[in-house]
Amino acid sequence: MSIDRVRQAALREKVMTADEAVQFIQNGMMLAVTGFTGAGYPKAMPTAIANKAKDAHAKGEKFSVGMVTGASTAPECDGVLAEAKALHFRSPFQSDPTLRNGINAGEIAYQDMHLSHVEQQMRQGFYGKFDVAIVEATAITENGELIFAMGIGHGVEAVKNADKVIVEINAALSAGLEGMHDIYGDVGLPPHRKPIPVVGAFDRIGTAGLAIDPDKIVAIVFTNAGDRNSKFAEPDDISKRIAAQVIDFLDHEVKAGRLPKSLLPLQSGVGNVANAVMAGLLDAPFDDLTGYTEVLQDGMLDLILAKKMKTASATALSFSPDALARFNENIEFLKDKIILRPMEISNNPEVIRRLGVIGMNSMIEADIYGNVNSTHVMGTRMMNGIGGSGDFTRNGFFSIYVSPSTAKGGAISAIVPMVSHHDHTEHDVMFIVTEQGMADLRGKSPKERAKLIIDNCSHPDYRDMLRDYYDRAFVASQKSGGVHTPHLLLEALSWHQRFVETGDMRIK
Amino acid sequence: MSIDRVRQAALREKVMTADEAVQFIQNGMMLAVTGFTGAGYPKAMPTAIANKAKDAHAKGEKFSVGMVTGASTAPECDGVLAEAKALHFRSPFQSDPTLRNGINAGEIAYQDMHLSHVEQQMRQGFYGKFDVAIVEATAITENGELIFAMGIGHGVEAVKNADKVIVEINAALSAGLEGMHDIYGDVGLPPHRKPIPVVGAFDRIGTAGLAIDPDKIVAIVFTNAGDRNSKFAEPDDISKRIAAQVIDFLDHEVKAGRLPKSLLPLQSGVGNVANAVMAGLLDAPFDDLTGYTEVLQDGMLDLILAKKMKTASATALSFSPDALARFNENIEFLKDKIILRPMEISNNPEVIRRLGVIGMNSMIEADIYGNVNSTHVMGTRMMNGIGGSGDFTRNGFFSIYVSPSTAKGGAISAIVPMVSHHDHTEHDVMFIVTEQGMADLRGKSPKERAKLIIDNCSHPDYRDMLRDYYDRAFVASQKSGGVHTPHLLLEALSWHQRFVETGDMRIK
Repeated sequence: MSIDRVRQAALREKVMTADEAVQFIQNGMMLAVTGFTGAGYPKAMPTAIANKAKDAHAKGEKFSVGMVTGASTAPECDGVLAEAKALHFRSPFQSDPTLRNGINAGEIAYQDMHLSHVEQQMRQGFYGKFDVAIVEATAITENGELIFAMGIGHGVEAVKNADKVIVEINAALSAGLEGMHDIYGDVGLPPHRKPIPVVGAFDRIGTAGLAIDPDKIVAIVFTNAGDRNSKFAEPDDISKRIAAQVIDFLDHEVKAGRLPKSLLPLQSGVGNVANAVMAGLLDAPFDDLTGYTEVLQDGMLDLILAKKMKTASATALSFSPDALARFNENIEFLKDKIILRPMEISNNPEVIRRLGVIGMNSMIEADIYGNVNSTHVMGTRMMNGIGGSGDFTRNGFFSIYVSPSTAKGGAISAIVPMVSHHDHTEHDVMFIVTEQGMADLRGKSPKERAKLIIDNCSHPDYRDMLRDYYDRAFVASQKSGGVHTPHLLLEALSWHQRFVETGDMRIK
Repeated sequence: MSIDRVRQAALREKVMTADEAVQFIQNGMMLAVTGFTGAGYPKAMPTAIANKAKDAHAKGEKFSVGMVTGASTAPECDGVLAEAKALHFRSPFQSDPTLRNGINAGEIAYQDMHLSHVEQQMRQGFYGKFDVAIVEATAITENGELIFAMGIGHGVEAVKNADKVIVEINAALSAGLEGMHDIYGDVGLPPHRKPIPVVGAFDRIGTAGLAIDPDKIVAIVFTNAGDRNSKFAEPDDISKRIAAQVIDFLDHEVKAGRLPKSLLPLQSGVGNVANAVMAGLLDAPFDDLTGYTEVLQDGMLDLILAKKMKTASATALSFSPDALARFNENIEFLKDKIILRPMEISNNPEVIRRLGVIGMNSMIEADIYGNVNSTHVMGTRMMNGIGGSGDFTRNGFFSIYVSPSTAKGGAISAIVPMVSHHDHTEHDVMFIVTEQGMADLRGKSPKERAKLIIDNCSHPDYRDMLRDYYDRAFVASQKSGGVHTPHLLLEALSWHQRFVETGDMRIK
């Protein structure tokens, strides 16, 4: 029974439907809503808010809200709200097609920010008070503690900073999640901060639940539907070749004595290629791996189940349907091997730097000097956002970017003269890997990097074009006084323009 | 007597001239050389190495070395070595005109990297062993501890990782420097790292000197000349207006309850504008300020002497001749108010994030979306390097970028459609300030930022050009499918190209 999950009896009188709870949401409000990479987002309230917006719009009234989440949610949250034109502001990350279209049409103001900055800015009061927090939970304990769902994200700060809290209790969640969360709410603000006491990637530093002022809870809504659960593609040949490159490199660093045989804690970005690298680690010559990541996906789960990985820390669990079943079946085995933290801890610069995390993320494109674009298609169109990639890239021990060398059947090169948007600069990016090969950029000047990236990473279809660009840029930059980083300023972004105009970066 | 500064008698037999000590430097070696923003660099050895290189070149022999410093040095170090064509690799930062020309001619491979990454990569062994460390020191104590000079930079790691050490003892340095350094050598490598115990900006966590294996010391060379000591320009009207903007903003944050009245620890980049902001703080309504910075310059020194600033932490002291005299005169007063740390601590992401440092750095240019270029002139020519600006920008509580709105008598706009090189991205930069005004970019989407930056920060001569660019970019990006960040891909860098061709970004 869902009601059994509200173990503090006094709170049971706050149970209502989403359509009733929507009374607390008014036009112009700022909402803090849980959700991180398709996990832990509310399943019912967004539709109720979307319907309220549609009703208002039908009457010619204004209705929209601002919404700050942990990261991306799902069609039943971002999707329905964007479709109802119920959002005027959205931060810090999204991946929903309908919301994306609203952003790219210029209808929704979207602040694409580092995830590690979110809770600090909420706490500091920069956004002002949040009117309502909507949080997904597994249960509320006897003493009124909130047990979060498959993701925590910014949930702690959402509850603390909102005037009112609406809790969605999701009966589809395994009750076994209780005990997996590690709620640490003491990061505070400067000048009163202490070291965050995570010294090993699996250190438990907090409590299982979040103590919450019961008076703040204005509604409890029951739901019974799983997280968005898209299936991963089976690793294709290209993903497998990328994974093999990464594993070869890590093995090389182990043999050179620069990495322990258990490597260092691994962060893995989302998506099929990252998942393929995790799958590749199943057969790699490393043992006792650890994870310190934002999102734990199928690949890392299988490493734990195969006992190749000892423990993993994340802020959200984002599984395919099959992996979710494996997770639920093995939850007792996994309980002391997976820890879920607030994203302020999972993405914290202090902890990432101390642990020496190996950050591995996918990219849209890299340029010949090692700058990376994670966010914009052809320079102007937002894809998803930077998410936590910058947190791990900037402060990790290694920063690895992976991508197939081409996209759209070869019409797009992932290696370009200049990236059309810069999210990670030449100073931050250490390794670029495609199915063609790997470029180790450490200790290299821009011109040395260009040679490596073109020779090792670019697709043969584009290699001569890149060399031609570089050679002409070198001559032109000599004339204009500096060849530290050769460029042709009017041609640097011409490949993207050609794609916009002809549908192909190649010259026909 | 210089010899008295070598207090461990057994070491005195290693005293020799630089021309004798240069026997330990061979072609192809990798050197770790102290020096940070014109402080703490060796005064004699570089010239001896340069002469050895010239002699070799005159005989038709090859001679060059790689050199990793803390940051920039001075003409007597980078300058003489570059002039003698004695460098083939240089990292992580420089500001010498002769060296810069060698880099921009493509003769010297220069890796421009975040200063917080340097010691970690040295320790990890990525560069291999360093053959020789050349370090400037104030003294060697009775028990063989090295007392560093006006700057530490990467000196601890230089000594630890080099096979041989040459110490330059500089008799021109105040003996009173002893006790000001705080040598902490326990950062280590993952997975064995502990929290760095700096909780307050002035916490002392180490020792005054660095214990050094006496067998490693192959030569002690005496010098008696001060650091490069360029004079600061008196703050001009534009710098004063920039300073006033920054101070107004900080005051506003204090009044809004988002900053304490003593602010948070201040980091200030180098240069006249940054120095003007420090000068402006002398009369600002804040008390008990603290500094947590890389380079302590005249402005911060005067804040301490005026008792507006309680304490300051830095890795180097870089003073004009007048300020150096004030420093030396007041060294007893200053001893418990200034602390010098290894740059791995001064620039450490963990500490900067915990303390909530207010980072304030100058820039070459910003674009209408808030990306900042700190390093390249017109996209291809290296100026100095990123230095520590990224360390403070990325992990600080506030990141502020300051610049006059134009340069070269108005021919260059510091606000452009797209920066010609990206060092700090839209995700990292929170505030842009020119003498025209300030843009607070927090919580803003790109299009909101563009309006703010153009309206508040750009020079009136360029404002209509920027609006025209933005308006046309919006229309074009609508056609190409995304107006999250409007751009005209073939025109984005055309202002820079126009300057290269005509000497003016304005259309004649």
